[in-house]
Order: sequence, then structure tokens, then C-alpha cells
Amino acid sequence: MDRPIGVMDSGVGGMTVVKEITRQLPNEQILYFGDISRCPYGEKSLGTVKEYTIQVAEYLVERDIKMLVIACNTATAAALPILRERLDIPVIGVIGPGARSAIQNSRNEKVLVLATSGTVKSEAYADAIKRLNQDFKVTSRACPAFVPLVEELRYKDHIVTGIVIHQALKDLTQSDADTVILGCTHYPLLKEDIRRYFGGRKTVIDSGYETAREVSSLLTFHNLFRVASGEVTHKILINGDSSRFRYILRDWLPELEYDMREIELKV
Amino acid sequence: MDRPIGVMDSGVGGMTVVKEITRQLPNEQILYFGDISRCPYGEKSLGTVKEYTIQVAEYLVERDIKMLVIACNTATAAALPILRERLDIPVIGVIGPGARSAIQNSRNEKVLVLATSGTVKSEAYADAIKRLNQDFKVTSRACPAFVPLVEELRYKDHIVTGIVIHQALKDLTQSDADTVILGCTHYPLLKEDIRRYFGGRKTVIDSGYETAREVSSLLTFHNLFRVASGEVTHKILINGDSSRFRYILRDWLPELEYDMREIELKV
Repeated sequence: MDRPIGVMDSGVGGMTVVKEITRQLPNEQILYFGDISRCPYGEKSLGTVKEYTIQVAEYLVERDIKMLVIACNTATAAALPILRERLDIPVIGVIGPGARSAIQNSRNEKVLVLATSGTVKSEAYADAIKRLNQDFKVTSRACPAFVPLVEELRYKDHIVTGIVIHQALKDLTQSDADTVILGCTHYPLLKEDIRRYFGGRKTVIDSGYETAREVSSLLTFHNLFRVASGEVTHKILINGDSSRFRYILRDWLPELEYDMREIELKV
Repeated sequence: MDRPIGVMDSGVGGMTVVKEITRQLPNEQILYFGDISRCPYGEKSLGTVKEYTIQVAEYLVERDIKMLVIACNTATAAALPILRERLDIPVIGVIGPGARSAIQNSRNEKVLVLATSGTVKSEAYADAIKRLNQDFKVTSRACPAFVPLVEELRYKDHIVTGIVIHQALKDLTQSDADTVILGCTHYPLLKEDIRRYFGGRKTVIDSGYETAREVSSLLTFHNLFRVASGEVTHKILINGDSSRFRYILRDWLPELEYDMREIELKV
């Protein structure tokens, strides 16, 4: 089964999921789609995001992926159910794995979700968690400033990062939730800053990290492992300008072997 | 989808998995089978264990379970592939989840597996881990004295437990593995003792705990959640004498609401 795993996101955030997939499953090949020209998805309407997500999914399916990972919370909230219905391959989103990990980790059954406006409006995390366990209390907070912070490469500037995090979260410092879900795949780049902001007292869950594990689980369940071994070159398709994407990857996944191409998604 | 989740084990060990399933998924109903009269499976031949496991699985399928959890490592090693082929419902074993969790958690890619002789002989963990990531080094150790220790209710006697653990693991104290898999569902009752024996320096993975999470994942994926809510009474069927089983449950899962019946498995 030498077909690649398709992974999509509006920008570079989905590479947090790829980082974990390639660490846990070094045999697998990734075909990544970054919808840079329409990034960010998080502040657009769910209807628009649904349309974009279906377009990208269909583009990847035509390129013979064996599984689709929607490595974007907003796109998962908008389009996971319809893609599961429409596509013949397994489709994984990032919300379910994050929700399950929160349930597994939380001791006081109180969870705080940090996400984009789109994901917060969708109530997708609260739905996913309460569907599994209705005893949980879920509070959500939209953090619209976090994605630009990462995409504009400011995530290493701890002073700027600190100010933006403080603005977004200052009235949550007394929150009694023992678990925080990073409900956007860009946020893991701010994970340590967010963890420290809460004084190290909350378990911070990276949905992407958890998603990689479920990819592994479904590959086993559907018997879809890649058989070939040896060096793997991943493929990255960028709808738009790839320069920032390259910069972040160099900083952040320096060992990844990949071919990157700029393409134009015709819709 | 108000059918129960079937869970089977040779003895009480599988209740470590049930404990986590009911904590994470309080809506779900469990139908448990404890094959006490033929316990332990771990020191029998894999052929015999395969036969027993298929008999129990078929018995549970006749009672209309929606999913089967083989909450026993030896039975998973012996019969998971054939049951996945034969049964129309999803079948989950404990080895895959434990292997995935070890890969996710280990930083130096060295893993130590503690299990029964049957599981060690099968090399099921080494196979499962290396199939995902061939860079890992896996060392296995059979600990035949651990299951009787638990089944004979000695798991709270820390002096006896300490001696048995020392006998089994004394030449592994210098092992450089950073991660230990408890590859038998009885062993979580000894988890703290084992963790302390290694000076708290190794991550100790409880396969059952990890399995509960994958049960949740597959319920989502197959859309098999129980819709009814309110109090759930679980059902426990014991092939043999249930007295020790009751004793351990009272000690260990005091809040579980259940009906227990002794049955005779006719084969």
C-alpha cells in the first residue's frame, strides 16, 4: 500500500501533525496541501471553509491518497461529516483526537478550548466531548491573534508572544479547568508560552500530536501500512506563495526530506 | 445503538480496561466475560489460547455485542487477526494501543515489555512496534509470577509484591529503555510498584488505559455510540467461580454498577 497519506491545512499549522506522523510512522509518505492563498480559514464563515475543504480534499483524492487527515480544526468542524460520507478512504479530523485526549487526561472534568473564531462558533469541541461524556464542562475562547502571530514568524519573539497571549487569556488565569486543548494546529508553536502562562498547572493538549496516533491506529485497523522502506521524500503542494512556509519548515522540521511545489488550485 | 461493548479476558485483568472505558465513556454498557475456569491464558500454548478466545468471542457475538475488546494480551497475540477476519463487528486488541503509546512516548526509541510467557513468545509487541517504526529496540521479559500474585489477591501486600518484582526484574534495573509496557492486563494492579522499582525513571504504559481510548476512537469512526443515557448496569459473566472476582472488583472498582452471573461455557 504505497500510496501517500494526504494531509491538508490552510497554512503551515498542519505540519505540526505531519511532524508527529513522520516521527511515529517513519515509513509513511505524506502528500501535504497548504491552502496559503486562502489562509487563514479560522476567521471565515463555516460555509466558505466547507467549500474550500471539499475542493482541497477532492484535489488530493485525485492524486491517489489512501487516507485524508484534515489537519485544521476549522476545516474539521466545517467538513468532516460530509467528507466521511463522500469519500471512500478513511478521513480523520483533529477534533476527535483532541477531545478524547482531554477526556483521558482531565481529572476534574473541566476543559478549556483555545481555538479560532470559526472553531469556537461551531462548538465542535464541546459537542465532541459531551457526546462522549456529558459530565464534562467545556469553556471555549477564540484567539484570533494567534494564527497571524505564527504565520508572520513572530512565534519565537517571546516578548510579542507574551503580550498577545496575555491579551487573549488574561481573564482565564483563574479558570479551574485542569486541561487546555490547543484547538488550532498553529498553536503548538506557542505551546510552551501558553503552558507557562498558566503557571504550568494545566495539562496542555496538542490535538495534532494526538491525531498522529489515531492515524497510526486507523492504518492498522484498515491494514493500510506502507510496505516499501528506505528514505521517504514527502510532497508538499502550496496553493500560493511558499516562501514563509519554507522558512518555518527550515526552522521547525529541519530534517524533513521533501519536494515542495507551488500550484494553483483551479476551482 | 444500544448494544453493549463485549470485553473478554481470562480473569479479572480485563477489568483494568473496563475501568477506563467506563470512566471515559460513561454512557456505554459493557458485557464482560471472565474465563476464570481456564485462567491464566498466559502460560498456555498459543494454539490453546486461540481456541479459547474464539469460543468466548462467539459466545459474546451471540449476545449481540457491537464491538469486541480482547482485553488480554495473550489472547490478542493468539487470535486478533483471525477474529478480525471472522467477525462482522470491530475487534480491538490491547497490543496495538500499547505499542502506539510506547512509540508516542519513548524519546530514545528503546522499549521494555513485561508480559506473560505466551505474549513474550509470540513477539507480538516487537512485531507491532517494528511494523510501525523499525528504528525501535524492543526487549521483552516474561513475568509468570505476576498474574497469580494479582489473582490470589496479594497485589496489596507490598512486601510480597516487592520480592516477586525484584526476582523478575533485578537484572533489568540498568536497562536503558525509557519506556516500559505493561503487556498483561493484570499488571496495572502492580503499576506503582513497578514504576517505583525502576526509580520513577521510566514511563510505564498501561495497555488497557490506552485501549479504552482506541475504543472511543473506533466508536466515533463507526458511529456506534450508545444513544440512551441515565444509569448503566454492566453485565459480567464468569465461567467458573466468581468469588475472587467479586472481591477484587469491590476493592478496585467499588462504584461500578453491575450484575454478575456464573455461567458454564459449553464447547
